[in-house]
Formats: sequence, structure tokens, C-alpha cells
Amino acid sequence: MPVEPMRGVVAPILTPFNDDMTIATDLYVEHANKLFDDGCAGIAPFGTTGEALSVGIDERIAAVRVLVESGIDPARMIAGTGLSNVADTARLSRACLDMGCAAVMTLPPFYYKSVSEEGLYRYFAQLLDATGGEARIYLYHIPPIAQVGIPPALVARLHRDFPQQIVGIKDSSNDWDNTRALFDIDGLIVNPGSELLLLEALQLGGPGCISATANVNAADIARVIRLFDQGDASAASDVHDRVKRFRLALQDYAPIPAQKRLLALSSGDDRWANVRPPLNVMSDEAGRQLAAELEGEFGFVMT
Amino acid sequence: MPVEPMRGVVAPILTPFNDDMTIATDLYVEHANKLFDDGCAGIAPFGTTGEALSVGIDERIAAVRVLVESGIDPARMIAGTGLSNVADTARLSRACLDMGCAAVMTLPPFYYKSVSEEGLYRYFAQLLDATGGEARIYLYHIPPIAQVGIPPALVARLHRDFPQQIVGIKDSSNDWDNTRALFDIDGLIVNPGSELLLLEALQLGGPGCISATANVNAADIARVIRLFDQGDASAASDVHDRVKRFRLALQDYAPIPAQKRLLALSSGDDRWANVRPPLNVMSDEAGRQLAAELEGEFGFVMT
Repeated sequence: MPVEPMRGVVAPILTPFNDDMTIATDLYVEHANKLFDDGCAGIAPFGTTGEALSVGIDERIAAVRVLVESGIDPARMIAGTGLSNVADTARLSRACLDMGCAAVMTLPPFYYKSVSEEGLYRYFAQLLDATGGEARIYLYHIPPIAQVGIPPALVARLHRDFPQQIVGIKDSSNDWDNTRALFDIDGLIVNPGSELLLLEALQLGGPGCISATANVNAADIARVIRLFDQGDASAASDVHDRVKRFRLALQDYAPIPAQKRLLALSSGDDRWANVRPPLNVMSDEAGRQLAAELEGEFGFVMT
Repeated sequence: MPVEPMRGVVAPILTPFNDDMTIATDLYVEHANKLFDDGCAGIAPFGTTGEALSVGIDERIAAVRVLVESGIDPARMIAGTGLSNVADTARLSRACLDMGCAAVMTLPPFYYKSVSEEGLYRYFAQLLDATGGEARIYLYHIPPIAQVGIPPALVARLHRDFPQQIVGIKDSSNDWDNTRALFDIDGLIVNPGSELLLLEALQLGGPGCISATANVNAADIARVIRLFDQGDASAASDVHDRVKRFRLALQDYAPIPAQKRLLALSSGDDRWANVRPPLNVMSDEAGRQLAAELEGEFGFVMT
């Protein structure tokens, strides 16, 4: 079964935690539904923004199951499953694919540094083998955090050798030259990892973006894509400018704690502010200051 | 039960793989016994050298069990269990401690970068809580690879707040100023992560070192410590110089593939050369060239 690109914005959904650090499944389901209501085409549970690497394998499987059992269509989910070894990544990927997820998104093995493209190729080849025939994988290129990246030449080789399985890439390099090079790879689904380059990606035929900020600004990001699809280039560009200003207004803050604090302020549920270590909670005071900045231009509303 | 330091050299044992990438348990047990025969005080399964981060959680537990069931005393093992999240690290740590391992060795959460000391403190505090009362942990400071380090001030705070649980540290910074600062922390067991600083550490009262090269040079490293203990400073220094020259002879090679190729050549079992991706196998030819360099001064013998 070939993987269809999700036309629109995909939200790498934040993971809410109770005060005892367990996953707050009630908030999780509620937020997932709100993201779809706001116009997201899909969600990506357990990306970097979802504090994926701070959540255990079995916790991740259980949380994705909660979403599916709540009635959210797994065909609209791309689950982050990338760990640093084949065995655990395959186990987690299989579990998510078995639940019906459209695809999984996997990091390169990110512990050992200065590794070769050949070594990374062998990693993904072994991962596909261990995951089984139904593997449908988006590569996850995020060199600012993972340090280990997946260069376009390697992406091309993987997609050429495994066209039904290495189906797409999330490019969080924030480097347009890199993203543009990926669009030259025939049949690959390319999603920039931020809305900053959304319009440029749409113009090259991309389906949308997978962006952290969709957690707090999905409606406007979705509007850029809708206007583009309606052929209203000028309006799309105006809304894109606004969307970029929103993102840039957050850039001086640690992004995950800041967005969670904003959700705590907009929902009135303080659990939203919780983060797992090594991240730190954004204070209520700092959050109110940020919210006040966003109120004027973007109509951000505190409860 | 307080943790006693292991006096001597502890080998972060290499993990041998069969051609199908499963762990070669026969070679693993054989090598562990050889390391003890060569004078190691202990072994540390699944450190960076043991390709820990390329091995799944259940694979690690099963492999440590094989060592224990083969008759190797778990009280002479410090198992590497550090992953990037509390839940999985606690599960793996508990399994190793339940088998009787002297302690476990855990990394800081290494995915998110530029994190605060407060965030790292909370991580280890939650890890101790999740692991349970019997937690006995060596911190693992290896900034060249993990990128995220554990600064001495944070080590001091953790050891002060949890003296029975945060018992020691392996310092693989290769930065003597850092190692020396750790020796100021009262009651902490400090092991440099290399034999290059072994004599300096012994002079400050350290118990020894945990060094990768012990996999291929244990007897000489152990001899440095024995001579030091016998009060023969001059002979200890001579052997230490020789040990350092051995290590430096390897420094132009990827360390894990090089040592594995040397073991393949000395044992005659080619499986020893296997590495998991993202690492690449050292070629037989390159290995023979290195072995020839080591033959003259160090008496390295190929089968």
C-alpha cells in the first residue's frame, strides 16, 4: 500500500504530563482533537516537540493506543519511533504500524558521532529488515538536536533502494538549500520541519509542513496552505508572513516549555506546563509576559 | 549496602556479534573470562565501547544474564544502562541490579542539547526514584560523544543528596582538570575513562580506571596498578608510559572497529570484526597493518 502525503499541516503533538510525570491522557486526546478541529491534516505523536526521547518505549505505545482507542484515525498519524538502535526502534515502529499509523518517523542513530553515510545506510537497511515488510518510514533530519544528520545523497540512495518503505522526510535543518535538494528526489514526500519555509515548499510541490508551532497556531498555518490551494498567492503570502512573525515571537524562549505554558494559560489547566527532565518548566510569570506579547497581534487568549 | 570501589582496571567489554548481528554469546563469555584472567578487577558490559547504544534493552538484559549464568560474578560487573529517558533507563537498571550487578552506569539524557544543570539534576532524581531503593549508580561523563555532560558541581550535588546511590563516576572527558575536580568530592569513586591519566588518578587515591583499551591490553594496564600498590613508582611509571604508547598507536583508527579487528586477528574468529551500524567494520587489510605496528613493541600476536 503506497503512502499518500498528508496535504496540510501535521502537528508534532506536545505530550502533556500529570504532576507525577505520567502522561495526561485526557489532555492528550483533547488536544489531538483540537488540532484536527483547527485544521491539521495529521498529527505526529512523539517527535522532538512531543518530548519523545524523554518517554519510554512502552509508554509511547500505550499513549498512541489511547489516541487510537479514543477514535482518532491512525491513518492520520505519523508516529515518531526513532531510537539509537535497530531492535528497539523496530519494536516500537512495528507496534505503531500494527495499530494502523500511516507511517513512522525515525531518527538516524544519534549516539555515536562522526559516522559515515555507509554506516547510516546499513542502519536503515537493517531497520527495514527488522521492522518487516509493512515498514513505512519518514526519515527525520534534525541536525541541530540529533547532531547526526541524513544528507540528501543518502536520502536519495535509501529512497531509490526502498521506494515503498522510505517514503518521506521531515527536514528540520532550517536550511533551505538542504530542503530544496530533497525536492529533487523523485517520489519522495518532503516536509519542512517548520512553517518558516512552508510557502517555498508548497511552490515546489510539497504537501505542507510538520511544525512544532502547530500546537499553538494550527489554524493560521493551515490557512496558508488553503489559500495557496485556492490560488490566492497574495493572501497566502500575507498569512504566511503573520505565521512567521508568530514563530519568531517565540524564538527567544525554550520552545517546548513555552508552548506548554501557553497551553496552560489558554486552557486553564496547569498540568499543561509540566515537562519531563532534562527540560525545565517555564514559569507562570514568564508565560504571562509572552502571552501578553502575543495577545495584541495574534489574539492569544488566556483563560 | 555501600558500594566498594573495584581496585584495578575495569574493562568496558566489547560486544561480539554473529554475522546475523545477534550477540555472539560464546565469544562474549570467553572474552569476559579472558579479561579477568588478564588481571581485570571488573567488567562494564554495555559502555560506549560495548556499542551499548546500538543494542536493544531486552538484548542487553539477556546478554548480562548470559554472563551471570556462565558463572561470572555479577558483583564484578558495572552494567551500562543509560538511555535518554527515565522509564527505560530504570527498567534496564533494575534488571541489572536484580541480577546482582555491583552497580549500573548511566549517561545523562543525551538527546536534548543545551539543557540546564537543574534539568539534569531532576532527571537523575527521578531516575533514582523510578529505579527504587537499591539503585547504585556510576555517572557516565563522556561529553565528546554524548555531547551533554555532567559538570563537577552537579556531580557534587547529586552525590551529596544521594550518597548511597550516586556512588561514582566514569570521567571520559580526557580533561585532567575535570577529573581532578571530581576527586575533591568526598566519598565519590572516581575512575578516569582512559589509562592515559591512570597514574595521576592513583596518586589522588583513585581505585583505577575504566578503559576501552583494556579489551586488548588489560595485562599491562593492570600491571601499572599492581606496581603502584607495591610502591614501585619508577616501574609503575615505565609501564604506564608503555601503556600510553599502546593507546596512542590506536588513536588514528576508529577505536571500536580497530579493537574488534585486533581481536579477530588474535583469536582467529572473524566474527570479532563485526560491528553494528552506524559503525563500519575495519578491513582485514587495515587490521593487519595495525597489528604489524603493534607486533614489534607490544608483542601483539596474530593467529
